[in-house]
Amino acid sequence: MGKTLTEKIIAAHLVVGEMIKGEEIGIRIDQTLTQDSTGTMAYLQFEAMEVPRVKTKKSLAYIDHNMLQEGPENMDDHRYIQSVAKKHGIYFSRPGNGICHQVEIERFGVPGDTLLGSDSHTPTGGGIGMLAIGAGGLDVAVAMAGDPYYITMPKVVKVELTGKLRSGVSSKDVILEVLRQCTVKGGVNKVFEYTGEGVKTLTVPERATITNMGAELGATTSVFPSDEMTKKFLEAQGRGTDFKPLAADTDAVFDEAVKVDMDHLEPLTACPHSPDKVVKISEIEGMVIDQVAIGSCTNSSWLDLMKVAEILRGKTIAENVSLVIAPGSKQVLTMLAQNGALADFLNAGARVLECGCGPCIGMGQAPSTNAVSLRTFNRNFFGRSGTPSADVYLLSPEAAAISAIAGVLTNPLGKVKLPEISMPDNFLINDTMVMEPAPEGTQIEVVKGPNIKPFPATKPLKDTVAGKALIVVEDNITTDHIMPSNAKLLPYRSNIPYLSNYCLAPCDPEFPQRALDNGGGFIVGGSNYGQGSSREHAALAPVFLGIKGVAVKSFARIHKNNLINNGILPLVFENEADYDTISLGDELVIENALDAVKAGKAKLVNKTKGLTYIMDLEVSQRQKEMLLAGGLINLIKSKK
Amino acid sequence: MGKTLTEKIIAAHLVVGEMIKGEEIGIRIDQTLTQDSTGTMAYLQFEAMEVPRVKTKKSLAYIDHNMLQEGPENMDDHRYIQSVAKKHGIYFSRPGNGICHQVEIERFGVPGDTLLGSDSHTPTGGGIGMLAIGAGGLDVAVAMAGDPYYITMPKVVKVELTGKLRSGVSSKDVILEVLRQCTVKGGVNKVFEYTGEGVKTLTVPERATITNMGAELGATTSVFPSDEMTKKFLEAQGRGTDFKPLAADTDAVFDEAVKVDMDHLEPLTACPHSPDKVVKISEIEGMVIDQVAIGSCTNSSWLDLMKVAEILRGKTIAENVSLVIAPGSKQVLTMLAQNGALADFLNAGARVLECGCGPCIGMGQAPSTNAVSLRTFNRNFFGRSGTPSADVYLLSPEAAAISAIAGVLTNPLGKVKLPEISMPDNFLINDTMVMEPAPEGTQIEVVKGPNIKPFPATKPLKDTVAGKALIVVEDNITTDHIMPSNAKLLPYRSNIPYLSNYCLAPCDPEFPQRALDNGGGFIVGGSNYGQGSSREHAALAPVFLGIKGVAVKSFARIHKNNLINNGILPLVFENEADYDTISLGDELVIENALDAVKAGKAKLVNKTKGLTYIMDLEVSQRQKEMLLAGGLINLIKSKK
Repeated sequence: MGKTLTEKIIAAHLVVGEMIKGEEIGIRIDQTLTQDSTGTMAYLQFEAMEVPRVKTKKSLAYIDHNMLQEGPENMDDHRYIQSVAKKHGIYFSRPGNGICHQVEIERFGVPGDTLLGSDSHTPTGGGIGMLAIGAGGLDVAVAMAGDPYYITMPKVVKVELTGKLRSGVSSKDVILEVLRQCTVKGGVNKVFEYTGEGVKTLTVPERATITNMGAELGATTSVFPSDEMTKKFLEAQGRGTDFKPLAADTDAVFDEAVKVDMDHLEPLTACPHSPDKVVKISEIEGMVIDQVAIGSCTNSSWLDLMKVAEILRGKTIAENVSLVIAPGSKQVLTMLAQNGALADFLNAGARVLECGCGPCIGMGQAPSTNAVSLRTFNRNFFGRSGTPSADVYLLSPEAAAISAIAGVLTNPLGKVKLPEISMPDNFLINDTMVMEPAPEGTQIEVVKGPNIKPFPATKPLKDTVAGKALIVVEDNITTDHIMPSNAKLLPYRSNIPYLSNYCLAPCDPEFPQRALDNGGGFIVGGSNYGQGSSREHAALAPVFLGIKGVAVKSFARIHKNNLINNGILPLVFENEADYDTISLGDELVIENALDAVKAGKAKLVNKTKGLTYIMDLEVSQRQKEMLLAGGLINLIKSKK
Repeated sequence: MGKTLTEKIIAAHLVVGEMIKGEEIGIRIDQTLTQDSTGTMAYLQFEAMEVPRVKTKKSLAYIDHNMLQEGPENMDDHRYIQSVAKKHGIYFSRPGNGICHQVEIERFGVPGDTLLGSDSHTPTGGGIGMLAIGAGGLDVAVAMAGDPYYITMPKVVKVELTGKLRSGVSSKDVILEVLRQCTVKGGVNKVFEYTGEGVKTLTVPERATITNMGAELGATTSVFPSDEMTKKFLEAQGRGTDFKPLAADTDAVFDEAVKVDMDHLEPLTACPHSPDKVVKISEIEGMVIDQVAIGSCTNSSWLDLMKVAEILRGKTIAENVSLVIAPGSKQVLTMLAQNGALADFLNAGARVLECGCGPCIGMGQAPSTNAVSLRTFNRNFFGRSGTPSADVYLLSPEAAAISAIAGVLTNPLGKVKLPEISMPDNFLINDTMVMEPAPEGTQIEVVKGPNIKPFPATKPLKDTVAGKALIVVEDNITTDHIMPSNAKLLPYRSNIPYLSNYCLAPCDPEFPQRALDNGGGFIVGGSNYGQGSSREHAALAPVFLGIKGVAVKSFARIHKNNLINNGILPLVFENEADYDTISLGDELVIENALDAVKAGKAKLVNKTKGLTYIMDLEVSQRQKEMLLAGGLINLIKSKK
């Protein structure tokens, strides 16, 4: 029986467990990446492990999130990461060099390698045939230390692409279509593997848009084969030697299948406030817009922005539109500066931001009150733009650019006839903004600014876990609810005590103080709790607030792992209806918690209501050990 | 007897008073400009005057300060200004089009015209022979309504430039040398007029650097003659018809004289934390640096940045340096994108920000804790960078660029041999980001976001003015104490109720609430009260809090005017020792206040202590009318 590409890569990296769907396996990690908003914490944790040098093939630290720098905190963090990277064998991509995922694929990703990144959009690397997975910072720290990364052996979904995109239809529309079909919950413990004749027609940046936004499916990752298109891309990056051909066997057996007929695909957009609320642009076109934002790790490649330049050239944006463009990397921006495309942007009235995540993570360019903002990004969660009253629509660069000119949401199909834009034979290569680590043994002072606080310590699990239901929240709570990530809070990603004041505040601003006043307790939630980003701050802040368990209908994968890594019990209602019986302030208790964890099942007693709930602890043996030890760092230390 | 250029321009615009040094005169204003952080309030005040259309030759509204947009407030303000400008006959320069002073000189400034701007660096326009003055927003609103602007007839200082700048020495060094000689207090009620053979060697952007930073002298303004260099510049901007030759008469009599020998001038830098703490770079070179920031209204012209490109080309910044470059205008940035200079910046590792004030006003790029930051800006006040512990040095673009490569403060003299950079024969002209106002009579809806609050209304003076001493502060209180201005508060410049919560908070955080609880009262202060910036928010917040009088040993000039404009009594102790007898909470009262204002002298009774203080009201007849009317807007309305 043939293998999927996913299975081939996993098999080549398997170090713990067996490749049985649904079972936990441990895989060797070749490369790691961090960005700065998760990286400070990851490196504090790495330092705590007292491993002198990373043991991966290559580890990279990028700066792309906290670049506005309204106070010293951001640059202090950059300096900390720069020095800790230099000391421990990690390559450091300086601020301005670009968004981690864009630079990774341009300069460092290797087909067939595994990549673990402390950013949920790490799967972008699947665009060149990497098995690239997003994880919490602690998981990445552990991988840097040379230990395996644990996942549930995923099911593999065959995404069969047929036909060819028409002018005005984009690979963004492919992933929007997959999201429409599968929803933001559709990908849990699955890898989306792209196959079919249509794959050959997609360039690497187009593939990377798809794998990037595959994160919104909740998938483990997404992956494309490594083929002639991949080879051409890597050769143009001066990295032909990194190429190897990779594909699923022709008789590979997939667990599920999705089809996208690119010949008939239409331009799509994701409506507020979820990436899977997808409609055809034609259904809502003509809507007056206020802002257009082009960029982010989803759509900021040279190819994306060249298409935008084609549309903007010689035109002027509508007077009701603010257009911002943030190129994905120094390579992209410099090439656009050299070939005139940047001047086209500027002449059309675009505001060009420096290379970074920028408005996609709410770092600037918040739209006006009640604005309609069209964005080429990957997420349109409520409030993420910095303007809670704004409506954010996700769409392709082509649709964004043509709408900026028109002043209303405009369907590019038929209205924009783009010339065929050939990928360059040679990208501009200048890696001077990537600093090599110091030779092993060099004395390097690690610089820690005053805003960098130790991460909160955890303790081994006690046999009685008791406390109040400190908050009861609904379905689909995102990590943006649990630990808001806006321009005011992002600078404090290395300061958990400060951040904790805002934990779950979008749901209930009183929650943090209530948690502290009660000496901790429980969070109660609905289904898909913790969807969104990989930020482990959504677990670290609850740790700081004394949260002992989170009882929900279901978890998003990365957040659940982050809870376990930090010693918080992830409890799933066996009977979802039990959720409805819990009220704010109910006294909850788990007796015999140690045995419960070992058994994978706990009785959660609601003393206030006189009810008992059966809770599943859907965790592996390894995770049980972590929960008993009070988190992964305690476990690692205990085994030393 | 011959006239200075200053006197010629004033004579041509005089509408009130006589040109006697030290006397108040009123001049006609040809052009006005606002930026967004002062502009929202200025336009709210303009609307309150109920004048349908501006009566100037040209009025311009620029967006350049609040461009980070971390929440909806900034873009709401942009939209408000855009709509109010369109309605009332004001040209609107959209965000991304550039810094007001840079764009003004490129596209709109006219030699011999008067320009009043709600930004203290408005004197930049003196680089093309305008009489360009910075003022509070209300003064600009009044000028837009066609009323004169009142100043003290200034003394004229002759600044004689001889010789020619050597390669590595910059016009920035000329103004630093003038600041070294004259200090930041040396320019009060003076105009600095540049003359001498050396003037001919300086291009318009070089002159504009000098007039811009002349603001740091505390001067009314600075002015260069309009000559062949000016003509060439305006012709290259497609504005040859705006040129007229202007100069002082050869037998003009100046009040004071300063000389700068450019042949022997050396590269200079202003040390923390004042623009007049000037030393030769050679005295402190070798100092390790952390950040270099190039841009601001002082040094972000095409010429400045071409010099930077020459130095950076083919080099890489030192690993300890973060280099940021913010071009001054879309014209500059687009030309750099087209000629390859921008690619040179990027290749060298620079972070290129969008066109705006940016880090100069603390809007981003705050350096790390205890950092040394070299900046081509005009101010290095304590904390202005966003990092209170940072040391900011002001210097030329050449010195900044070469230091960024070296990683230490480096004297460019002898180390950098710049080729002669010719000014372009034709600048790139594209004014599509400047929106023309709607034809008179067009129905335009003015859009006010929820953060835009009406400015506080004032009432005619009552005959009994009573209240508590709500705060007693020391000498040298600055406008940064009275109304702090940082990245967190700047977005609220159109929301006086919100800002008022921070009024005088650096001195006493309880003051705002205490003022509200007591229904207003008095501020008591020492000497030089209100020094620093021109922001009228330092008067508007006290108005909102119900402040009726400010009793001090002495006032800084502009703040005193702002108090009067807003109907707050500026009271000066005739006997300074009286200050010591007032305690927080003392009940103060002025009976017969109307007669007191008319007489210019008031009895302030301290009922708590049983004392009576004689207070001087050192105000002009015009200002007495304002105080009686309860401020300038009421006065204007009453005269309708």
